[in-house]
Amino acid sequence: MQITVLGNGAGGPYSGRHYTAQLVQVENHLFLVDCGEGTQMQMHAFRTGQDRIRQVFITHLHGDHVFGLIGLLTGWCLKKRSDDLQIFSPPGLQRMIETMIDVCGIRLTYHIDFQEVDANQHCLVFENKKVQVWSVPLRHRTACCGWLFREQPLPRNVIKAKIDEYAIDYRLLPGIKSGDDLTLPDGRVVPNAELTTPPRKSLSYAFCSDTAPSDGVIECVRGVDLLYHEATFTDEHVAEAELSYHSTARQAAEVARQAGVGTLWLGHFSGRYADPTQHLAEARAVFANTHATEEGEVRAVESIF
Amino acid sequence: MQITVLGNGAGGPYSGRHYTAQLVQVENHLFLVDCGEGTQMQMHAFRTGQDRIRQVFITHLHGDHVFGLIGLLTGWCLKKRSDDLQIFSPPGLQRMIETMIDVCGIRLTYHIDFQEVDANQHCLVFENKKVQVWSVPLRHRTACCGWLFREQPLPRNVIKAKIDEYAIDYRLLPGIKSGDDLTLPDGRVVPNAELTTPPRKSLSYAFCSDTAPSDGVIECVRGVDLLYHEATFTDEHVAEAELSYHSTARQAAEVARQAGVGTLWLGHFSGRYADPTQHLAEARAVFANTHATEEGEVRAVESIF
Repeated sequence: MQITVLGNGAGGPYSGRHYTAQLVQVENHLFLVDCGEGTQMQMHAFRTGQDRIRQVFITHLHGDHVFGLIGLLTGWCLKKRSDDLQIFSPPGLQRMIETMIDVCGIRLTYHIDFQEVDANQHCLVFENKKVQVWSVPLRHRTACCGWLFREQPLPRNVIKAKIDEYAIDYRLLPGIKSGDDLTLPDGRVVPNAELTTPPRKSLSYAFCSDTAPSDGVIECVRGVDLLYHEATFTDEHVAEAELSYHSTARQAAEVARQAGVGTLWLGHFSGRYADPTQHLAEARAVFANTHATEEGEVRAVESIF
Repeated sequence: MQITVLGNGAGGPYSGRHYTAQLVQVENHLFLVDCGEGTQMQMHAFRTGQDRIRQVFITHLHGDHVFGLIGLLTGWCLKKRSDDLQIFSPPGLQRMIETMIDVCGIRLTYHIDFQEVDANQHCLVFENKKVQVWSVPLRHRTACCGWLFREQPLPRNVIKAKIDEYAIDYRLLPGIKSGDDLTLPDGRVVPNAELTTPPRKSLSYAFCSDTAPSDGVIECVRGVDLLYHEATFTDEHVAEAELSYHSTARQAAEVARQAGVGTLWLGHFSGRYADPTQHLAEARAVFANTHATEEGEVRAVESIF
């Protein structure tokens, strides 16, 4: 599981930061999370590739998270994309995009399946063989949900020596990997625990932008390996954070601490800050394993548990 | 009259070029022409200022000319803009923008007056004390009009020595600047030509993107001081230019030559070209006074007539 940060700025196009967007890669599946204006340029600048994107997840319909979507969708038509696309978002996006498609006379070369979700529910909204994606209700000025990516449980690792020892038919391996015991020709049963070792832990990543600090978020993201939590402001502007339903870096760290996550990533920095040095200092006072995201960085999600 | 090139690329976000947008400044009036995705970032990058924009002119509703508009309009709300805004465009833009405003819950802090124009007519669509703006029907795949900026006729320059010689009342000066003769107390009439010198020529700038070569365009832009004409392709791709209702650099130069303009600017370069060297060579073979625009450049319109 690997994250690419395309944009981590809030509000205006200041301080060289771009609007929110990330790519989440799970094995050969690529997901786009949020799509602020300029996202397609950022993908191009960072040479991320985008052809494998089949699902897009939008947290909410504020411009800095969604105004780049129509340009991306149109760009894919110019490239003659034919693969279906699913877009998950709070309600309203379908009407907006379809109006633009109509007004601008865009001839879609692929099918878009709009999945409008209830931002107040913590639900499984998508899964494939590798990953589940859950909605995470956020506390913002408009319907807004974070997205929680959980790798599907991984198969157990079969001990190679045991395959030889018991001359295991390869057709039985998928069952053994999923936990089956082995019944030998003479009727004896070899317990799975003798044949396999546990898989590595399934990784999890929660993307929470934009939100005021929320107990609900803490419950939904409990124990995730990596939490991206918005940190628009520093302590100095805590009143403004409250008014605008955003968080300070310290509040984000408090969420991370209470939720017992592995690592905290900060982003969605207000344009008033030239750099996130102060954010980092304030957050680390509460939760040491905190990182301030940088645009263009590509990092694997790791488990520290 | 001064032009700022914010973006001069076509199609995808390639070769470091951005989508089409320009600022046209006439004395203290600032006009935005087209607004592709990323225009607000380009304004910020080039520190152009944008607070004085009261009119926006959109050539057509293809994404690379208009998808940056909603972000700009929203950004102005964050800055608490209160000045009215007029937006001139072919039909459909109002429905698109109003749907986005509704879906995204944008609370406009200022009034927008949508002026949807008939892209098939060469009409005066706007004027103030300093400038007129005319629509220029273009030949593209969708309703599309260029924009022709003409400075209003300038006042004649009163010869200072004549003011003293005839003890001219300062209240008579506006009339004299606009061409009135002077009647002296004794009834003698001093002809205006003795009192004034002609003003400099009013400057004109025509912005024509996107279009196939067009006789209609030649008629509309005849004799302008500066013509910006799209030059998406080079000779090598003339067939593609024809299919897509775009122009080659040579065709743009042919329009400039036949229209007898002063200077030709090229832009809207396809992403397949790393630089416009070939465009320039092919255009200058037809029309010597040709310039390939660069993003970020700011140039005064000059008359060579």
